[in-house]
Amino acid sequence: MAGEYRTAITTEGTLERRVQDRVSVLALQVEEEIDRVIDQACQSAAMRDAARYAALNGGKRLRPALTLLCAKACGGTEADALPAAAAVELVHAFSLVHDDLPCMDDDDLRRGRPTLHVHAGEATALLAGDAMLNAAYWALATRVPDATIASNQIRELAGACARMIDGQALDTLGGFDKVLSTDEARLRRIHQWKTGALLSAACRMGAISARASDTHLAAISDYALSLGLMFQVVDDLIDVEQPTEQAGKRTGKDADAGKLTFPGVLGVEASRAEVGRLLDKSLCSLEPLEQSGGDLADLARVLASRTR
Amino acid sequence: MAGEYRTAITTEGTLERRVQDRVSVLALQVEEEIDRVIDQACQSAAMRDAARYAALNGGKRLRPALTLLCAKACGGTEADALPAAAAVELVHAFSLVHDDLPCMDDDDLRRGRPTLHVHAGEATALLAGDAMLNAAYWALATRVPDATIASNQIRELAGACARMIDGQALDTLGGFDKVLSTDEARLRRIHQWKTGALLSAACRMGAISARASDTHLAAISDYALSLGLMFQVVDDLIDVEQPTEQAGKRTGKDADAGKLTFPGVLGVEASRAEVGRLLDKSLCSLEPLEQSGGDLADLARVLASRTR
Repeated sequence: MAGEYRTAITTEGTLERRVQDRVSVLALQVEEEIDRVIDQACQSAAMRDAARYAALNGGKRLRPALTLLCAKACGGTEADALPAAAAVELVHAFSLVHDDLPCMDDDDLRRGRPTLHVHAGEATALLAGDAMLNAAYWALATRVPDATIASNQIRELAGACARMIDGQALDTLGGFDKVLSTDEARLRRIHQWKTGALLSAACRMGAISARASDTHLAAISDYALSLGLMFQVVDDLIDVEQPTEQAGKRTGKDADAGKLTFPGVLGVEASRAEVGRLLDKSLCSLEPLEQSGGDLADLARVLASRTR
Repeated sequence: MAGEYRTAITTEGTLERRVQDRVSVLALQVEEEIDRVIDQACQSAAMRDAARYAALNGGKRLRPALTLLCAKACGGTEADALPAAAAVELVHAFSLVHDDLPCMDDDDLRRGRPTLHVHAGEATALLAGDAMLNAAYWALATRVPDATIASNQIRELAGACARMIDGQALDTLGGFDKVLSTDEARLRRIHQWKTGALLSAACRMGAISARASDTHLAAISDYALSLGLMFQVVDDLIDVEQPTEQAGKRTGKDADAGKLTFPGVLGVEASRAEVGRLLDKSLCSLEPLEQSGGDLADLARVLASRTR
């Protein structure tokens, strides 16, 4: 028994390191692409510096890694998926900058450093957020050679970004209670919109860059749906369970702000069980991809284990 | 002499009415398209209402009218240019909402009504601005059937929007003095970026929707460059010369804020002369379009006469 337990721990430790190494290598490529995009899309030093501060220091690069891994899983190349990976990360970074502003969550710490408006002022943060959102579309329209692929990717990203903003608006300003009747239904909708939509777009844009078949695109879409929700349940658990220093951002703030969270609505244990259920679902979704889905399966397993 | 003067006035009055009528008809089409785009791109009532408040009440609709007129001038249809017209107006409306925010120009009046953040709160205005910028790209990617045209239009719009944000950043945060040595050079650069780039994109996107020849696209580009700068000189003159009630927005604020303006740098009379010079230049640019450029020429003439 003890021996079996140790093996499981070691295997998981090895898996986590292997996935982290893989994501780190992908992240480097993405960061180089983001740097090129910022350099070409922003001509003022103020916007370049601010966009780099917000988009290039720290961050897990989960979304762009998903874009590149989904491209590979569907038989494409990382190089062809790179503009989409950079675009999705720029949209993510823009949303963090605007969400941190005083009129929104008023956060002063992000990725272990002062947020952009604390570092460079509110006007700079507002404009740099705008510049990053815009640069995402600039990157897709200028750096994807095939116009049909570019246009399809822009449709994915713009649809997801619209949902993300809708979700942020309903979460911040209220209004979900008029649409959905239970806390759990509202919670799932908020997160599907706030984080799930962009994670789905990240995955689907990768598949699109690989000219994926309908079957593979559907598999990737299902995987992304479960993974996105699982990611958010895990995030909520971290906010409850980890101190600020370990998480690299201010934790405990959801409860302070009276926001709906999975541990708050379902309880901690049921939230952990939900993570397990969503992990299984995401792994099943990958079946049509056969061996090519291996990296995506490993990534899901590691994301599920973040709270333990 | 008196008779000649009266005829000139009457002709100009007639021209102005004719152009206004033409722009009003185009504006109606554009507003219907913007309404459809907002309805489809925004799913939360908060974002839909806010985007409609900011994008659909008042405004001259100059940019989308230019898109449609340039499409016609290059042999295309208004219908084919409609998504681009809506997109360029959404980007313009987004920029006004964010520029009006307390951390930027802190304006409380726009188009004769309370600005969006005064009307609906800062968080709503921030998010609705983001939603409108995003919806512009959503509109082009989903509502332009030809992927090559969509992708080219997105490239135009994203490039122009990046310049607009750069211009706003340099104007608000400072930094132009490090790049250019004279006030006049800085002034021209600020305005080329802040307003000229988007006006140029409006015109060029129309031409692109019509699959314009290189010669026609170059003519449209030259026209837009002169028109954009002329428009700004006229705007600066209005800010100096007209009371708030007549202009529909708070005037006199450029001087109050110590901003560079054409009347401030060149003087009022030289600014008026510059308007004449730029009008002539824009009219000459239209020569390759022959009779098809008539509406664009009339529009330039009317815009030049706004301050008299």
